[in-house]
Amino acid sequence: MTAADADEEVAADLAERVRDGELRLYELEDHTDADTAAMARRLLLERETDADLSTVGDYSFDASEASGTNIENMTGAVQVPVGVVGPVRLDGEAAADEHYLPLATTEGALLASVNRGCATIRESGGATARVLKSKMTRAPVFRVEDVAAASEVVSWVRANEDRIREAAESTTSHGELVELTPYVVGDNVFLRFGYDSKDAMGMNMATIATQEACELVDAETPASLVALSGNLCTDKKPAAINAVEGRGRTVSADVEISAETVESVLKTTPAAIAEVNTRKNHVGSAKAGSLGFNAQAANVVAAAFLATGQDPAQVVEGSNVITTADVRVDEAGNRSLYASVTLASLELGTVGGGTKLPTQAEGLDVVGVRGGGDPAGTNADALAEVVAVATLAGELSLLGALAASHLASAHEQLGR
Amino acid sequence: MTAADADEEVAADLAERVRDGELRLYELEDHTDADTAAMARRLLLERETDADLSTVGDYSFDASEASGTNIENMTGAVQVPVGVVGPVRLDGEAAADEHYLPLATTEGALLASVNRGCATIRESGGATARVLKSKMTRAPVFRVEDVAAASEVVSWVRANEDRIREAAESTTSHGELVELTPYVVGDNVFLRFGYDSKDAMGMNMATIATQEACELVDAETPASLVALSGNLCTDKKPAAINAVEGRGRTVSADVEISAETVESVLKTTPAAIAEVNTRKNHVGSAKAGSLGFNAQAANVVAAAFLATGQDPAQVVEGSNVITTADVRVDEAGNRSLYASVTLASLELGTVGGGTKLPTQAEGLDVVGVRGGGDPAGTNADALAEVVAVATLAGELSLLGALAASHLASAHEQLGR
Amino acid sequence: MTAADADEEVAADLAERVRDGELRLYELEDHTDADTAAMARRLLLERETDADLSTVGDYSFDASEASGTNIENMTGAVQVPVGVVGPVRLDGEAAADEHYLPLATTEGALLASVNRGCATIRESGGATARVLKSKMTRAPVFRVEDVAAASEVVSWVRANEDRIREAAESTTSHGELVELTPYVVGDNVFLRFGYDSKDAMGMNMATIATQEACELVDAETPASLVALSGNLCTDKKPAAINAVEGRGRTVSADVEISAETVESVLKTTPAAIAEVNTRKNHVGSAKAGSLGFNAQAANVVAAAFLATGQDPAQVVEGSNVITTADVRVDEAGNRSLYASVTLASLELGTVGGGTKLPTQAEGLDVVGVRGGGDPAGTNADALAEVVAVATLAGELSLLGALAASHLASAHEQLGR
Amino acid sequence: MTAADADEEVAADLAERVRDGELRLYELEDHTDADTAAMARRLLLERETDADLSTVGDYSFDASEASGTNIENMTGAVQVPVGVVGPVRLDGEAAADEHYLPLATTEGALLASVNRGCATIRESGGATARVLKSKMTRAPVFRVEDVAAASEVVSWVRANEDRIREAAESTTSHGELVELTPYVVGDNVFLRFGYDSKDAMGMNMATIATQEACELVDAETPASLVALSGNLCTDKKPAAINAVEGRGRTVSADVEISAETVESVLKTTPAAIAEVNTRKNHVGSAKAGSLGFNAQAANVVAAAFLATGQDPAQVVEGSNVITTADVRVDEAGNRSLYASVTLASLELGTVGGGTKLPTQAEGLDVVGVRGGGDPAGTNADALAEVVAVATLAGELSLLGALAASHLASAHEQLGR
Repeated sequence: MTAADADEEVAADLAERVRDGELRLYELEDHTDADTAAMARRLLLERETDADLSTVGDYSFDASEASGTNIENMTGAVQVPVGVVGPVRLDGEAAADEHYLPLATTEGALLASVNRGCATIRESGGATARVLKSKMTRAPVFRVEDVAAASEVVSWVRANEDRIREAAESTTSHGELVELTPYVVGDNVFLRFGYDSKDAMGMNMATIATQEACELVDAETPASLVALSGNLCTDKKPAAINAVEGRGRTVSADVEISAETVESVLKTTPAAIAEVNTRKNHVGSAKAGSLGFNAQAANVVAAAFLATGQDPAQVVEGSNVITTADVRVDEAGNRSLYASVTLASLELGTVGGGTKLPTQAEGLDVVGVRGGGDPAGTNADALAEVVAVATLAGELSLLGALAASHLASAHEQLGR
Repeated sequence: MTAADADEEVAADLAERVRDGELRLYELEDHTDADTAAMARRLLLERETDADLSTVGDYSFDASEASGTNIENMTGAVQVPVGVVGPVRLDGEAAADEHYLPLATTEGALLASVNRGCATIRESGGATARVLKSKMTRAPVFRVEDVAAASEVVSWVRANEDRIREAAESTTSHGELVELTPYVVGDNVFLRFGYDSKDAMGMNMATIATQEACELVDAETPASLVALSGNLCTDKKPAAINAVEGRGRTVSADVEISAETVESVLKTTPAAIAEVNTRKNHVGSAKAGSLGFNAQAANVVAAAFLATGQDPAQVVEGSNVITTADVRVDEAGNRSLYASVTLASLELGTVGGGTKLPTQAEGLDVVGVRGGGDPAGTNADALAEVVAVATLAGELSLLGALAASHLASAHEQLGR
Repeated sequence: MTAADADEEVAADLAERVRDGELRLYELEDHTDADTAAMARRLLLERETDADLSTVGDYSFDASEASGTNIENMTGAVQVPVGVVGPVRLDGEAAADEHYLPLATTEGALLASVNRGCATIRESGGATARVLKSKMTRAPVFRVEDVAAASEVVSWVRANEDRIREAAESTTSHGELVELTPYVVGDNVFLRFGYDSKDAMGMNMATIATQEACELVDAETPASLVALSGNLCTDKKPAAINAVEGRGRTVSADVEISAETVESVLKTTPAAIAEVNTRKNHVGSAKAGSLGFNAQAANVVAAAFLATGQDPAQVVEGSNVITTADVRVDEAGNRSLYASVTLASLELGTVGGGTKLPTQAEGLDVVGVRGGGDPAGTNADALAEVVAVATLAGELSLLGALAASHLASAHEQLGR
Repeated sequence: MTAADADEEVAADLAERVRDGELRLYELEDHTDADTAAMARRLLLERETDADLSTVGDYSFDASEASGTNIENMTGAVQVPVGVVGPVRLDGEAAADEHYLPLATTEGALLASVNRGCATIRESGGATARVLKSKMTRAPVFRVEDVAAASEVVSWVRANEDRIREAAESTTSHGELVELTPYVVGDNVFLRFGYDSKDAMGMNMATIATQEACELVDAETPASLVALSGNLCTDKKPAAINAVEGRGRTVSADVEISAETVESVLKTTPAAIAEVNTRKNHVGSAKAGSLGFNAQAANVVAAAFLATGQDPAQVVEGSNVITTADVRVDEAGNRSLYASVTLASLELGTVGGGTKLPTQAEGLDVVGVRGGGDPAGTNADALAEVVAVATLAGELSLLGALAASHLASAHEQLGR
């Protein structure tokens, strides 16, 4: 009997025991290694449903690398097609020159679109990008007796920011508390903690540090902690507080494109693109009651997140993007298109979470930002700048396509 | 020379030609098969960057299945760990009894959390779920001369809904136009088209049908089409119009859980969970200016989307979820927890897009909803109901954990 | 003893009895006429506080006209300075040619600003205005057992719209039910009723008609009425549902102004105004998470509301205004400014409420829209059109002033 | 000829000259006193329209007190019925014990409703109120070349906050710059200035001080001022930035009411009120995409604003109110209702603007807060606390009425 056969026998036996109610689905790792446990689950599911899970089971990493760290009840892996766009040419503070960017998606035409935007940007000498803010937030909610107590707690917090910082930072070697804002609603006190989490996306760090700080507040004031997250963070929900104040990185990118380049690459004019941007991204989004004033930022953010091991649920915040597009005329009367994107709350990292998985780490390597930066934070800054420029590329290309009226036909050809 | 060696040689040559500027990155499929083209891109990237792309290159499907349909500039695939939760027990209209649900994520503790919620629901006899609305929308923006013309166009559209429907539906064998709402802002006329797209997510269908309808409007009225999407759709942006009026499926799920079950499975009380829900999901989200009044809906939606081939950028709309949690007392004085989730704009399908890729199709098979339903639309309805119940499970588990104060410690153990 | 002295004696006696706890403040009208009751309250307040209420007591109407109808616990009247702007020249559907508009405010520079805008519009041949939607809404909330019951109730409502309409309309001689939209959130069913209330603002009519309809729904379905208003109306709260779907009148006004007129009247250029509008009203409002994309619409709406007897609390909805401003170039190369305002939810009437009070009725007479129109609804439509054009005038003037950089100095001269 | 006759003759002559186009409507004060100018306008309007403006002309102050300061093109005054509620019993930081509050409105039933709430609060020993934040904001928008320049400007602003403060405060004897927050969107830099404006509402002070600060920024950085207000202020528009961060005063008020009092005064139960609050104010407002989670806060704010000389257009921000209502059970098992209101952005003052007009000043005297406080700011703080408690009273009463199901019938009796 080969080793593989032996594993399969173990797996079959475990699947049987789950079916018989002897074991629970999540207990399999207690009885075998992670790969065999995943196999057992596939066997179970294949019997309970009509599924054939052979490709899900065909993954390229040790299950033990992911199981328990990134996933529970693991059965295998989903494979999402990945491609590459670029090079993205940019003048950033952390990233410069040229970077390729991998994008993973199943939406036909997306990479072609972004790539066309990248070409437009390259043709214009590159985009400029800047990280304007950087902080990961966590906002616990406390219960107090009444608004008088709420007011006291707020005063205490303001007077004891040093002690709170000390408590929070005692839990982390690299995180720094950079913001602490109290909000009161009746007998609820919310404290929004913001941390510089360097190259980590920072949610776990922020959660653990905030937990420690909460214990201090809970002990020293009349406030009682109700929930470590009180939704003013705001994590994975569309929320104005993120669009206004930022979360993760707030990053802008822009480019100025000559009328000639707009014409030759995008087959339209600066004025036509500016008009589409105004009517669609500004007026349309305004009328929709939107927090996203852009064409397809989430497409680029989602694809970049998947390819580099970020949390796809944070695409929600990643869509808080304002795109601007205006015609500029220089003193000689030459017309150009100035376009920008500002991503208010781009939450990403180059360490931790999904970034360590093999295909995702390879994605970070393509950009050149795997692991911690030197100085700390610069790898995540660089990734944010590159993603911002790719988002700009996606906007330029889609606005251009709309201006030139071929959205539907492009989909007819490429989508399905 | 083996076939593999031959392919590698071809790939190396193509990579060389791209580097030399003879070919562009996206032209490789014109010169070789899709797998070799992907290999060529990997070789190029490996040389241009420090990346080793061996695991990205280790995918389990023919590149030709994805390349050009789901992706351009393909280099391989990203592997995202997938696990399974459930069985999800529910009384829906399209789904009933029990379903397993695959979830793909890299966020430790997520599946454990959802699974604990599923157990709570099973213990309570299952959840109830209903799809309340179903339509995929597209909202072009037209330019008119002034508000008098805008008013005329609106009148014409209202009077000619039949002709518009005929035009739109001429492009599709299965889609039906079920909504057509005009909105005016100055010299902009937006028409929000809503289609019953059956088992398809429906964006491509809606785009193509709307394009045809727009040509009619453009020809018969003073309105000129500016952009096929005017952001009142609203696709992949957080927008109140989706939260209020819905997009894709609007689906609710709920469950009533006895105090005993809350105590035994979630280690807390109905009142404590209701309090967390009020302070965090209602008051906190209200204060944050949010369109998402929930704890972690996007986590579940994102993970289910990845595992079943949906568009992860549409997690944005998937986060428009309101969670309610209240204590109920029956006539005998027995207390229970009533909890519900309402997903206003869950956009998904069981045909088209990423659903055909092998690992994703296997995911749909696990749920039992691969391909078109009978009658049409019921597979996507069923998937929506199952995802809604899983979202409810995630809410119950996280609210319970917060109520029992172990969020941070759970992360310390499971996350990294 | 004169009659006045006698009244004063009665009032003094009543004030005494309130102070002694024999009578309550609101019971005075049971013991004397409305004017003497108001006097009694003034006497009481003058003794209890240091106030001298002589000007509050110097009002020009019979207290009995207002007391109990428009106010309780009446003490007199507040006097708000009123002026006039115009003539407002417009091409509307209900209003045409020229109308003066009274505006009541205490904010210096407001009327001067609006008046300058009116001059700009007159100079350009007048504005165009159109009422695009008209309905007053009320949205009760019902409690149901679970989402299955919610789904049933929605189905029943859709199938029984005729019966519901009949019930609602049985309470009103002129109101018509023109919209009935169900919304579900877990065990909550909201029904948004929209009525054509003709020349009335319509809240009372809508409330009474909806109450009747609710009794039918309550009797025939498992739903139980919890509150006649469930905040999806939405009355007097900033809410996207109003900005998107409208409430009261949705009305647009626009004008095209030659570059010469922009220069001569507003002392700036079309491009400068368009730039201010983009940066402030579009980008700034987008970044602020706003539902109002305008410069000062609420100022004009509030002042017109006060002068014509509308409800000033509905200025909240009146501020849901999008202003657009673009440069247009005709075929001969002549440049002009196209500017528009779209008021999504302007709630006003020419009958009922405060419109019957003497100074307010005089205000309606200045516009020429006092009382019911012929056909019904046209007076309120005309008022909406005039207010929209005045709002446009306010926008033009303030955008022009900002473009020409004299906001602060204008305030220095005129404000205090 | 009496003086009055002489004035009338002058007025008639001026009206004639306006009609003949010799004079403009706004130039009359150049030719006569303010009262006669107002009379001339009334004569003109009476001839041009069918209006009789005799009650508008019957005002109780010298036109010269208002004309040019509070109004232009003055014709007279609008009289709004005013009544009184209270006493409002409260424990605030600036206000204590009992205060009467005048409310001006034309909406029948409003004062009765608020007064019933005041009685409920008095019966419960009074409410608690706290001002949590206080600042008036102005946010100019600057144009920069690109995002690199934007980043530089932000850095300069952060490094030069002292110089900016000095410039801003040089224009004011009492205002203090307490906040300065930069926001970037592409080539737009917004600076949100927040001032402690003491007893003044503060808009004019903030505008003038910010103008001075802008000149410094404009001179020292590559930024060019485009508009003194860039809509991130946000003045008189519904905007999340105000709801989240506050503008004017952020003030909370709350009360705990025994079940007995709820029963005896409001004729319902704590649980019924809590249920209405959840379904209507929380879930309904959430579904509506609202920034106001309350029942009728704007009614109370608007009526108090009118009666005390505030700016009614700022009722928009005044409606950013979250109401909470929960059942509390003490250790002995006694049930009570805890209710609170939090007004995020209540903009008011006791000096300047409309507060100096006679009837409005009398209104402030009723509350006991006319003019500047000692120490400065305490009068406006006290007014804010009183208005907050009255808002709470309005919420309690309306929630109680809804819970007891008599909204419509109350309107049938009292409204018209």
